[in-house]
Amino acid sequence: MIALFTDFGLAGPYTGQMLAVLHQTAPEATTISLFADAPPGQPKPAAYLLAAYAAWFPTGTVFLCVVDPGVGGARRAVVASADDRLYVGPDNGLFDLVLRRAADARLWEITWRPPSLSASFHGRDLFAPVAARLAKGETLSALARPDAEHFERGWPDDLAEIVYIDHYGNALTGLRGSQVPTPARLVAGGRSIAPAATFSAVPPGTAFWYVNANGLLEIAVNRGRANEVLGLAVGSPITIDS
Amino acid sequence: MIALFTDFGLAGPYTGQMLAVLHQTAPEATTISLFADAPPGQPKPAAYLLAAYAAWFPTGTVFLCVVDPGVGGARRAVVASADDRLYVGPDNGLFDLVLRRAADARLWEITWRPPSLSASFHGRDLFAPVAARLAKGETLSALARPDAEHFERGWPDDLAEIVYIDHYGNALTGLRGSQVPTPARLVAGGRSIAPAATFSAVPPGTAFWYVNANGLLEIAVNRGRANEVLGLAVGSPITIDS
Amino acid sequence: MIALFTDFGLAGPYTGQMLAVLHQTAPEATTISLFADAPPGQPKPAAYLLAAYAAWFPTGTVFLCVVDPGVGGARRAVVASADDRLYVGPDNGLFDLVLRRAADARLWEITWRPPSLSASFHGRDLFAPVAARLAKGETLSALARPDAEHFERGWPDDLAEIVYIDHYGNALTGLRGSQVPTPARLVAGGRSIAPAATFSAVPPGTAFWYVNANGLLEIAVNRGRANEVLGLAVGSPITIDS
Repeated sequence: MIALFTDFGLAGPYTGQMLAVLHQTAPEATTISLFADAPPGQPKPAAYLLAAYAAWFPTGTVFLCVVDPGVGGARRAVVASADDRLYVGPDNGLFDLVLRRAADARLWEITWRPPSLSASFHGRDLFAPVAARLAKGETLSALARPDAEHFERGWPDDLAEIVYIDHYGNALTGLRGSQVPTPARLVAGGRSIAPAATFSAVPPGTAFWYVNANGLLEIAVNRGRANEVLGLAVGSPITIDS
Repeated sequence: MIALFTDFGLAGPYTGQMLAVLHQTAPEATTISLFADAPPGQPKPAAYLLAAYAAWFPTGTVFLCVVDPGVGGARRAVVASADDRLYVGPDNGLFDLVLRRAADARLWEITWRPPSLSASFHGRDLFAPVAARLAKGETLSALARPDAEHFERGWPDDLAEIVYIDHYGNALTGLRGSQVPTPARLVAGGRSIAPAATFSAVPPGTAFWYVNANGLLEIAVNRGRANEVLGLAVGSPITIDS
Repeated sequence: MIALFTDFGLAGPYTGQMLAVLHQTAPEATTISLFADAPPGQPKPAAYLLAAYAAWFPTGTVFLCVVDPGVGGARRAVVASADDRLYVGPDNGLFDLVLRRAADARLWEITWRPPSLSASFHGRDLFAPVAARLAKGETLSALARPDAEHFERGWPDDLAEIVYIDHYGNALTGLRGSQVPTPARLVAGGRSIAPAATFSAVPPGTAFWYVNANGLLEIAVNRGRANEVLGLAVGSPITIDS
């Protein structure tokens, strides 16, 4: 299985062109879009999202990850191998949390090059062909050199910021529920917010937080949009009021 | 074939995580997204949309339906069996119109439970595994108990409201064309609207109504957005001016 | 492979219903969405987008193209055969540039008719069944009559307008990079814009143009949204300041 994690949006030609490459190179592979709307051009919040959601996929999954504001510049192309999953994409911190949380982690620099490489669409020209080859069973060592130097960016283990606003207006944080004492209150958008077990446990219009189905602390409003009620966006800071 | 009917939006991780479950459990099944933007958290208009669009799919289709504002609360998980199609989802009225319009209808309560059930994402943890098992050919009686009590919500046979605004700004109603006399005028957004056979039959900028390709009465504006021109949204009332 | 090029948007039931038809008729075919958000109801800019992106797909691809404001009116249904790719859709100019740029081009009028044809959704009822039959290997001559009269609309070889705004706010023009002298400046939104090799070659907030990965001249702003910074939308004129 190949899982896509990008900031392309679902519309437009970008995902479709990558899918065409994947299909031509690895016709047997199943491709699933995990996120097409990761924070645009922001590898830091995207790294916390990816680490929380990728862990839920079966081992053997190849993640094709494109949040790549430095495309065409000097940033390297890498594969992170972490706990029997592979992550293909730019070396801009996107895989830092995946690597840090894995028991077994290794960073590879992609050495494979396509016959023709555009300056602006490495997702199609470089990352998708490599992901498809890995999904087909080609060995990493045929495509990349191991033990690439890893530049530690010093990002925290958990990020006390909003990292994603979903379709319902729920605000996902970069904090894992397991790292926060459950009776704690959060402060977000200038408001103190108590935990609740589920939407229907609070009155309509009330903000609450809970640990979502992928382990992230998430802020919601029963029958409302938390981002609008609390004025939250990707990057808004959260504090734990314990 | 498994058809998805949700209010998840296409972006974000929710549909992708359900697709991963479907693929792992029923790799041979083809999955198609019918609606990913059903009215968010509103089972009533969604029920009229579902009934109109599901009837068009081939018999044997399994519909995985998640418009589920009560997730985590006391609402039951059900399968509606109606005219050789199966509908898996929450028991909140979403299947009321499908059941009422079927010649052969039966409601089942899902008894199967996953090893681990999140409080907020029954689509992934409960409904998708059940839909995949049904698509693979497992019997309903292995997953659910028949003749679940059906709470009639007293919703009308046709809903004189807007139930969906599409990408073009066209406003779909919950009224079936077959139930409305064709020369009738409608009143919507304070304006009286005449029928027309097709877009090009009226001048640009003119509102008209017609029976859409799935049998619902729909309000459109030639080369314009009916929702903006007429001030319509999901829930706006319609009256028939006959 | 069947590639979809439509103005349906990804949400809503339209793409899903076409996919259901394609799957039932040609279950072996792989279907990829290239554009679901072509300029709504505007065949002219869509024609330049299609010509630029279709050329990148492998020969043998069948394109199912629905930008069809005249649906239900007198416009014909056609197949354009151009350089070993097939394009199925309405005869409204959408294929004019594909035909003009092909070494080997022929226009066919679709004669096949479905048992039942709605007035508003020829994508589902007519174009998708024809595309699926072609993808399965049915001959064009069984579905269409060759040498349909081609009404030349007199559109230019390259269109000096914005034809698409992407998810990042980048503004694609209908100008091929190969037709523009590279040191030229463009004027768009009242501003003179210089070329740059890539995003990271200009300071944040600066507008520049480049030739994108599909050969079209594109206007972008490093770490910004060109459409907002420059006030651009589909149809905005571009001039080359050479």
